[in-house]
Amino acid sequence: MLKINPERLLNDLKQLRSFGATGPGVVRLALSPVDLASRHWLAGRMSDAGLDAVIDGVGTVFGRSRKSGPVLVIGSHTDTQPTGGWLDGAMGVIYGLEIVRALAECEETRRFAVDVASWIDEEGTFAALLGSRSFVGDPVDEAIDCATNREGQRLKDALAAAGLAGKPRVRLEKGRHVGYLEPHIEQGGRLEAGGKAIGVVTSIVGLRELRVRFTGQRNHAGTTPMSIRCDAGAALVAFIASMNEAFGQLADADTVWTVGRIDLDPGSLSVVPGQADMYLQFRDASAVRLRAMESKLAELVDEFNARGPVRVALANADEPMEPVTMDAALQEYVARAAEAVAPGQWIRMPSGAAHDAQLIAAHLPACMLFVPSIGGVSHDFIEDTAEEHIVLGCQVAATAAASILSEQWEKQV
Amino acid sequence: MLKINPERLLNDLKQLRSFGATGPGVVRLALSPVDLASRHWLAGRMSDAGLDAVIDGVGTVFGRSRKSGPVLVIGSHTDTQPTGGWLDGAMGVIYGLEIVRALAECEETRRFAVDVASWIDEEGTFAALLGSRSFVGDPVDEAIDCATNREGQRLKDALAAAGLAGKPRVRLEKGRHVGYLEPHIEQGGRLEAGGKAIGVVTSIVGLRELRVRFTGQRNHAGTTPMSIRCDAGAALVAFIASMNEAFGQLADADTVWTVGRIDLDPGSLSVVPGQADMYLQFRDASAVRLRAMESKLAELVDEFNARGPVRVALANADEPMEPVTMDAALQEYVARAAEAVAPGQWIRMPSGAAHDAQLIAAHLPACMLFVPSIGGVSHDFIEDTAEEHIVLGCQVAATAAASILSEQWEKQV
Repeated sequence: MLKINPERLLNDLKQLRSFGATGPGVVRLALSPVDLASRHWLAGRMSDAGLDAVIDGVGTVFGRSRKSGPVLVIGSHTDTQPTGGWLDGAMGVIYGLEIVRALAECEETRRFAVDVASWIDEEGTFAALLGSRSFVGDPVDEAIDCATNREGQRLKDALAAAGLAGKPRVRLEKGRHVGYLEPHIEQGGRLEAGGKAIGVVTSIVGLRELRVRFTGQRNHAGTTPMSIRCDAGAALVAFIASMNEAFGQLADADTVWTVGRIDLDPGSLSVVPGQADMYLQFRDASAVRLRAMESKLAELVDEFNARGPVRVALANADEPMEPVTMDAALQEYVARAAEAVAPGQWIRMPSGAAHDAQLIAAHLPACMLFVPSIGGVSHDFIEDTAEEHIVLGCQVAATAAASILSEQWEKQV
Repeated sequence: MLKINPERLLNDLKQLRSFGATGPGVVRLALSPVDLASRHWLAGRMSDAGLDAVIDGVGTVFGRSRKSGPVLVIGSHTDTQPTGGWLDGAMGVIYGLEIVRALAECEETRRFAVDVASWIDEEGTFAALLGSRSFVGDPVDEAIDCATNREGQRLKDALAAAGLAGKPRVRLEKGRHVGYLEPHIEQGGRLEAGGKAIGVVTSIVGLRELRVRFTGQRNHAGTTPMSIRCDAGAALVAFIASMNEAFGQLADADTVWTVGRIDLDPGSLSVVPGQADMYLQFRDASAVRLRAMESKLAELVDEFNARGPVRVALANADEPMEPVTMDAALQEYVARAAEAVAPGQWIRMPSGAAHDAQLIAAHLPACMLFVPSIGGVSHDFIEDTAEEHIVLGCQVAATAAASILSEQWEKQV
């Protein structure tokens, strides 16, 4: 019977946490000195587990199995947000490592091959999802040349400083892998609210990020009567109210939209704002609904421009991301493993956050498994998950991995 | 017949403009080197006009008449905003200077005494309305000790650097003055829109400046369903919509309110705002209406807190200012002068902007006269007024000054 080692799992997680530990949280920005140190440590742990480990030309740590036969990739990312939690990404990578060890220790599963990956810069210190993009063959050379971090350091220079410039980049090998499994913390509060321990991910939502700019006329806030104002800020507020109503009609229970930032110019109490920007993000599992929301937004912009006097213009604040469906067969393996390990304690759910899995899903059957985030908190120093859930999640992932590989072996026979 | 000298008036205005000229505008922040140079020049021009001129212990330039009999003070300020126009304040001071000269050149008005003032720091580089506050005897010692400019320089140190520390401060002398006249540009678009040349000011509006803070719960914008969000930014937008409706019901045509600044925290597209601040200013000529608006705001805050989940709190962003009525008798002098010089081309109107006159009005009969601002623009480099309006306004002010002083002389006889 395949059993992961809870103590070994938790010890490795805690060791990884020590790289960049800041109070209960972690600051381990991609390619920072502490991140690089953690990558060397991780490559060492992978070698100890019998994998051929490399840190590749973009910084991804990849542990390649020496075993023959069908190979499953398990991974996630070990870089963090500027105020990161200790489990976001890191947990999935250490699950992979522990699963390699657990499989090797069990007679029936010893032959099963698992590669383990820590994709570089999922969090976008330089360029979000860089490692998985590079792995699947999406173009990354422009990002390497041009992307910079907050301090203005170029990715190219960060890679050179890390001694990685010119090193080969790990690429997906045609025919090697049968699938990709990414275990991750939920980063939301749905599992906790429902009293569940495991989420089997059905899809990763798509998203749009837009800037809506309102152009009015800057004026003295005392001497300009309301009737002749062209107040960009007031138009912005009216627009958001209309948008909330319109989106409310299009939404289902999982649709989310957020105005995360508002800039009024010049930002003085005595001046009627002449320009106002709102930054909007919306996410949904349905590509059709995302397009309907975009159309509705364009309609509202037209309405406001027809009404005047403030002019409104839409611009993309970032590239659109389309929703990605998780592989149905792999979902079944994870669901069966969850039911076996934690009967009745799991649900199917979409992922509201972006993950490396959404890029890899276009090239390999991919699936994800979630464990609960305490209080639904993530991207914060206080992010945490109960130890029993960390252990349970790893056992489910290991069980799913074994059954996926077992069935692949049977097919080959 | 009393006649001002248009060429001399415009020449002095243009000379004053040369101190701090920046393109079409002026940067002459209170007590800056260029402001001090202009004060020495102005004191010289006052002396040339027969006044006893001083730069006092706070920086106010005061030209005291040597004549006996009733004295009228004419003045405004010559300091500017960081991106100031050439006429804001400066025009009223040079009007005073020109009126002293014009009165002296005319047989019937030669005996009339006018003091001229350029009150320091109306614009609040260190402490708004400092000169007029000091003149009427409001406490200013704390401001002198503590107030700083944007560069962090203390007012005290700026006065010492200017050689003004310890100099006497000009104070209102009981019984000396019969009134205060402050000519000024309108800083709004009402005169221009109505095709008028002169505004006789009825009152200076009062104002309130408040911060409304919304406290919610910061959360991941992808994984937090709309139904369980505690979005401080969304509450802010809903609050403004309710406030606009409520204020619209309380307002008359002159009531104004402005949301000049909004801060969402943390200001990221991927994060549901946990805190949101809006900065609100509202102005009205009626103290009763200002209080009604305050009460309505407090009511809305209670409503929103009762509804939850976001908490709302009100705080003053600055001291409240009560509306000030201009002296009825002085208004009549200005109105008759306007009708005599520019028949049918004048209106009565409130001032939406703050002025030194509002402080002095508590101590002396005070009135103001406006000339049109082109495009209603002020506090901007492109602020301007047609030369014919500058000249006309000075002639109206001179005529009003002469009739005020003439009637005072008659009373004394």
